[in-house]
Amino acid sequence: MKAARLYEYNKDFDESVRLVDVPDPEITGPSDVIVKIGGAGVCRTDIHLVQAVWQEALGDPRLPYTLGHENAGWIEAVGPAVTGLAKGDPVILHPLITCGLCRPCRTGYDMACEAGKFPGLDGTDGGYAQYLKTSERAVIKLAPGTDPVPLAPFADAGITAYHAVKKAMPYTYPGTTAVVVGIGGLGHFGVQLMKVMTPATVIALDTSRERLQFAESLGADKVALAGDDGGVAEILKLTGGRGADIILDFVAESGTPAFALKYLRQARGGTYITIGYGGDIRPTTLDLISKEFNIIGSIVGSYSELSELMELNRQGRVHISATTFPMSEYARALLELDKGHVLGRGVLVPDF
Amino acid sequence: MKAARLYEYNKDFDESVRLVDVPDPEITGPSDVIVKIGGAGVCRTDIHLVQAVWQEALGDPRLPYTLGHENAGWIEAVGPAVTGLAKGDPVILHPLITCGLCRPCRTGYDMACEAGKFPGLDGTDGGYAQYLKTSERAVIKLAPGTDPVPLAPFADAGITAYHAVKKAMPYTYPGTTAVVVGIGGLGHFGVQLMKVMTPATVIALDTSRERLQFAESLGADKVALAGDDGGVAEILKLTGGRGADIILDFVAESGTPAFALKYLRQARGGTYITIGYGGDIRPTTLDLISKEFNIIGSIVGSYSELSELMELNRQGRVHISATTFPMSEYARALLELDKGHVLGRGVLVPDF
Amino acid sequence: MKAARLYEYNKDFDESVRLVDVPDPEITGPSDVIVKIGGAGVCRTDIHLVQAVWQEALGDPRLPYTLGHENAGWIEAVGPAVTGLAKGDPVILHPLITCGLCRPCRTGYDMACEAGKFPGLDGTDGGYAQYLKTSERAVIKLAPGTDPVPLAPFADAGITAYHAVKKAMPYTYPGTTAVVVGIGGLGHFGVQLMKVMTPATVIALDTSRERLQFAESLGADKVALAGDDGGVAEILKLTGGRGADIILDFVAESGTPAFALKYLRQARGGTYITIGYGGDIRPTTLDLISKEFNIIGSIVGSYSELSELMELNRQGRVHISATTFPMSEYARALLELDKGHVLGRGVLVPDF
Amino acid sequence: MKAARLYEYNKDFDESVRLVDVPDPEITGPSDVIVKIGGAGVCRTDIHLVQAVWQEALGDPRLPYTLGHENAGWIEAVGPAVTGLAKGDPVILHPLITCGLCRPCRTGYDMACEAGKFPGLDGTDGGYAQYLKTSERAVIKLAPGTDPVPLAPFADAGITAYHAVKKAMPYTYPGTTAVVVGIGGLGHFGVQLMKVMTPATVIALDTSRERLQFAESLGADKVALAGDDGGVAEILKLTGGRGADIILDFVAESGTPAFALKYLRQARGGTYITIGYGGDIRPTTLDLISKEFNIIGSIVGSYSELSELMELNRQGRVHISATTFPMSEYARALLELDKGHVLGRGVLVPDF
Repeated sequence: MKAARLYEYNKDFDESVRLVDVPDPEITGPSDVIVKIGGAGVCRTDIHLVQAVWQEALGDPRLPYTLGHENAGWIEAVGPAVTGLAKGDPVILHPLITCGLCRPCRTGYDMACEAGKFPGLDGTDGGYAQYLKTSERAVIKLAPGTDPVPLAPFADAGITAYHAVKKAMPYTYPGTTAVVVGIGGLGHFGVQLMKVMTPATVIALDTSRERLQFAESLGADKVALAGDDGGVAEILKLTGGRGADIILDFVAESGTPAFALKYLRQARGGTYITIGYGGDIRPTTLDLISKEFNIIGSIVGSYSELSELMELNRQGRVHISATTFPMSEYARALLELDKGHVLGRGVLVPDF
Repeated sequence: MKAARLYEYNKDFDESVRLVDVPDPEITGPSDVIVKIGGAGVCRTDIHLVQAVWQEALGDPRLPYTLGHENAGWIEAVGPAVTGLAKGDPVILHPLITCGLCRPCRTGYDMACEAGKFPGLDGTDGGYAQYLKTSERAVIKLAPGTDPVPLAPFADAGITAYHAVKKAMPYTYPGTTAVVVGIGGLGHFGVQLMKVMTPATVIALDTSRERLQFAESLGADKVALAGDDGGVAEILKLTGGRGADIILDFVAESGTPAFALKYLRQARGGTYITIGYGGDIRPTTLDLISKEFNIIGSIVGSYSELSELMELNRQGRVHISATTFPMSEYARALLELDKGHVLGRGVLVPDF
Repeated sequence: MKAARLYEYNKDFDESVRLVDVPDPEITGPSDVIVKIGGAGVCRTDIHLVQAVWQEALGDPRLPYTLGHENAGWIEAVGPAVTGLAKGDPVILHPLITCGLCRPCRTGYDMACEAGKFPGLDGTDGGYAQYLKTSERAVIKLAPGTDPVPLAPFADAGITAYHAVKKAMPYTYPGTTAVVVGIGGLGHFGVQLMKVMTPATVIALDTSRERLQFAESLGADKVALAGDDGGVAEILKLTGGRGADIILDFVAESGTPAFALKYLRQARGGTYITIGYGGDIRPTTLDLISKEFNIIGSIVGSYSELSELMELNRQGRVHISATTFPMSEYARALLELDKGHVLGRGVLVPDF
Repeated sequence: MKAARLYEYNKDFDESVRLVDVPDPEITGPSDVIVKIGGAGVCRTDIHLVQAVWQEALGDPRLPYTLGHENAGWIEAVGPAVTGLAKGDPVILHPLITCGLCRPCRTGYDMACEAGKFPGLDGTDGGYAQYLKTSERAVIKLAPGTDPVPLAPFADAGITAYHAVKKAMPYTYPGTTAVVVGIGGLGHFGVQLMKVMTPATVIALDTSRERLQFAESLGADKVALAGDDGGVAEILKLTGGRGADIILDFVAESGTPAFALKYLRQARGGTYITIGYGGDIRPTTLDLISKEFNIIGSIVGSYSELSELMELNRQGRVHISATTFPMSEYARALLELDKGHVLGRGVLVPDF
């Protein structure tokens, strides 16, 4: 089959990532599942992978491997112990392959599986390909007849936003103000989910007026344009000087964490949650204690969170904004994302 | 009456803080309470106040004012609306004067009272004196005949540790390892309270062997000496390489936050709580999300938390280790604390 | 002034409750507040008070006293310690007079104040009158120019529903089904609040088609008519046989608790919350453990909850459905409520 | 092999349950595990099974089947997909066979597995035998050399108590009083676990002075003998008239629920948790709301809870009190339990 694989770091996208022929994946274990890819989401993390940002954190994975950690499609084959799944069933995939035996897997935190593999990320082959091999525990069956292609972004962008919103929930009540920073692939879910899951007032913050209009169409109560001061003055103005009770930072580079600390709740008890990454954050411990705030990191969500999110989508309460690209044009899709030209999420569709 | 007041910053303790005669406080409002000081705790924050560390965070309070934010004694006089308190009743004081009307006061978070005053800290006169004026809402009545003097350290050191332990509680279960950094006035409560309130295994970390022995006598399960590497290697060794699930940093200067990030849970989900202050902490956002950890600031506890703590003391489950000084020797007490020569907590007793 | 007072139990409404002349209330304590009543809600509890249902639970209050525990109006006079309130300010009142000193008052549970008084309920004079005396801690100031009259039902019906919804929140996630039983004065808030505060699917259950249409207009996802089987078959059908994960029973008489146990989640872990009262509930302990369900009683909400609810109303996210009656026609208002003829909530407006 | 199997209901123990020869269990699925039984706990539920108490709730399981749902022993054989377990490893077993795929399995609630089997209870063969067949997900490996025999009671009695204590935890703080009703196989864990896991004051309540002494030796702060009034007067006396904030009822028959409602917290907000079963509980809804209490059913704990409990045992913080019987004398063991003659828990040890 065809697969777009990461061969080396820090070259142009079409040089670092090459479209090559590889053997089809095969069932080898009793719980294996092979999925025919319908859509594979294009994530900023794919760009970061090419840039070697994750190289150390992932333990320097062996190259090459197939990218693509946000996948949906149809069941192609299943192992002998798998029940309830048949060839042709439309499915969306939790991004990890998990063991089901460790404590994280048993307690709703399977994305931290002690034996987990992360196709498309850690050297395990991902979904920029015709077929992907995963395991029964990663599969969510969609209603018969569902088109899985446009749903792919829920599999990573969606649940990453959802997981962060779940962390924000205990801090919200009517009157709470939450700022969503960055209305891109993740942030556009963040705005919707904060509205559906909490009673908070949601302010969208972005450097682009177009993306702020997009945020308003998704239900943001207010919007703020991030200019030279990163939106600090505007957020303080919109909150009557009180600052944001909760910040969901989907960017976390180009200085957004430092700006966030300035418009975080001026009284005690604000919560900053970072989902983006790239920059650093440097609170003094005096600020930390005297303002008693929380700085919380948030990663991809769990299988159950993906189930809940798909239920919200089924109910029509969360929408996806996806642009499709032929998979052979993966390099162009990465480039457009890098330039900030994709509204919502890009999805690769196999054209082989 | 006599009072030790902060006159200027950054001099020797006996020059910055001077023992002077001031008028006795008087009842002016219906809920006022005047307390005859039995004991006033000596806190590292008093040293920081002299060093102007808090000057900006407190809004540059007008000098001079009387220090002392950790007080116990006996009721001297009460306003006309106060019931249930009579002259001579032994009492311990919640450190703030709070309004009882704002949302924080109503929801168990009165230390963030929107109209709160903090005697001994923010320019309001504190307890390094013969008498202190506070309000009915700050008073906890002790059982008749109780000697309030040695209990004073519960009023600030105690509840600050207690508040932090409450923040740690949701993250603990049998098998969890918590590191308590710094076995001083606050940390010696931290060790005891982690044992009473949670099933965690507690490791005490300090630069002093004497204080580690002290920690063991208080119930620490294990101890680690912080050498040049801040105890990183020893904590990793004691945890089988897994690191600490929870860190309570009662120091937060001299590099302890940076060391803490190194021995924090190596897998995902560790929680670092700082109670100390002075240094800063600089996680990358990539670390924050890929390890999904929490960085939490913790300040003094609430009135209800002080009530709970006094109940634990009454049950004999939490002990205090206090050294008394005549109040006229406040400068010596501050100096000995600064040199690290006080085991547990120092308490000033009026000798006028 | 005129006041409608409860003189004896179990007569016709105009005989049990009599409109009489009483002295105007006066400021006697520093934190007293006198409010000119704009609207006083008419509650099923008022009927129960007349029927002596509460007589024992309230400790046999001395008769007569003025009814009316759901009040809004304008500040008339304040005690000397009260700041921030001036004659003419529109206000809504938390129903209790609370001390601000006990643990419940300090921890967000002021409706259980250890020294609390409940005007209109426990023998303290309520709001079926021209003026009501309460205390500073009970007052929520409304925006200048707000008409408080139609808002009165938030003061009791609203926060009682809100408090119950807060108890339901931890049990909800996308895919959860909640049944709201009884779409009357409280239930009509229950439907709206479940939609605003949680991602649950909401089924309204009532014996009246008119009230079910009303529920749909308020946002209920589905409705079920309670026939002879109390809606059991219909709820099971609407949930695909799984039953309701959460039940909010605003009726709790005429057999609704027994029916509820039949359509409660058939698998383990359902939660039944009762806000209504009158009947009893008789689970076997074998059912309780084998199905591991929760039976939870819920009473009026706290001051902070009323603040949150008023904020939701200000944002236009929760609406009130009120019918006004001249206060002199209190007996007719009680009678129409008793007959089930009031859609939403009835409010008495002084016409003296 | 030999196995003691339930053949018919409601006869004498040795007639209802017969020791017979059955084929050894065999590995058939990839994740199967066969355990050589070391010890099988004898539970009041076994008696209830013989008495057909569970017949309907379990869906009328096909007889005969082998009893025994509380098992520990050594690995005998494993399926081809099982890793990390080898013949001879000492193990304790979570009582259910679970799928690892459903929402309960993924969210820490595996005892409610949608496809779960419960050996010894639901018709699946249990551990009153030489060998038991279960699945990889049920196995907790013990440290090499551990004797599993006396640990068996942790597998059901232990985690059932632990699960209930976890439900009680959010309601406890220093000053809280918890009553543990019934100091038998489960209750003796309940007393210890409340002390280890919470800061509550623990009162043990039983009809036997011997068991109350036993409770004191396990750390109960106070004890109360249940006489004709079920201990109501004594509990009220011990709590200064306030009643118990939390009740863990390990009996729930012979009237204990009705008594419990009388000594439950007299102010608002008490929590009654039932682990025992047999009787019923009949609160009025007026009591439920006016006292705002919680009635909570609690069943066996999860795999993770068993792991946590074994960790507490490893740390020496929870002890077991077990009496062994030769397995061939199962009928005598059941009889002695029924008569209340077993202190702590009885364990059957294969003697074939």
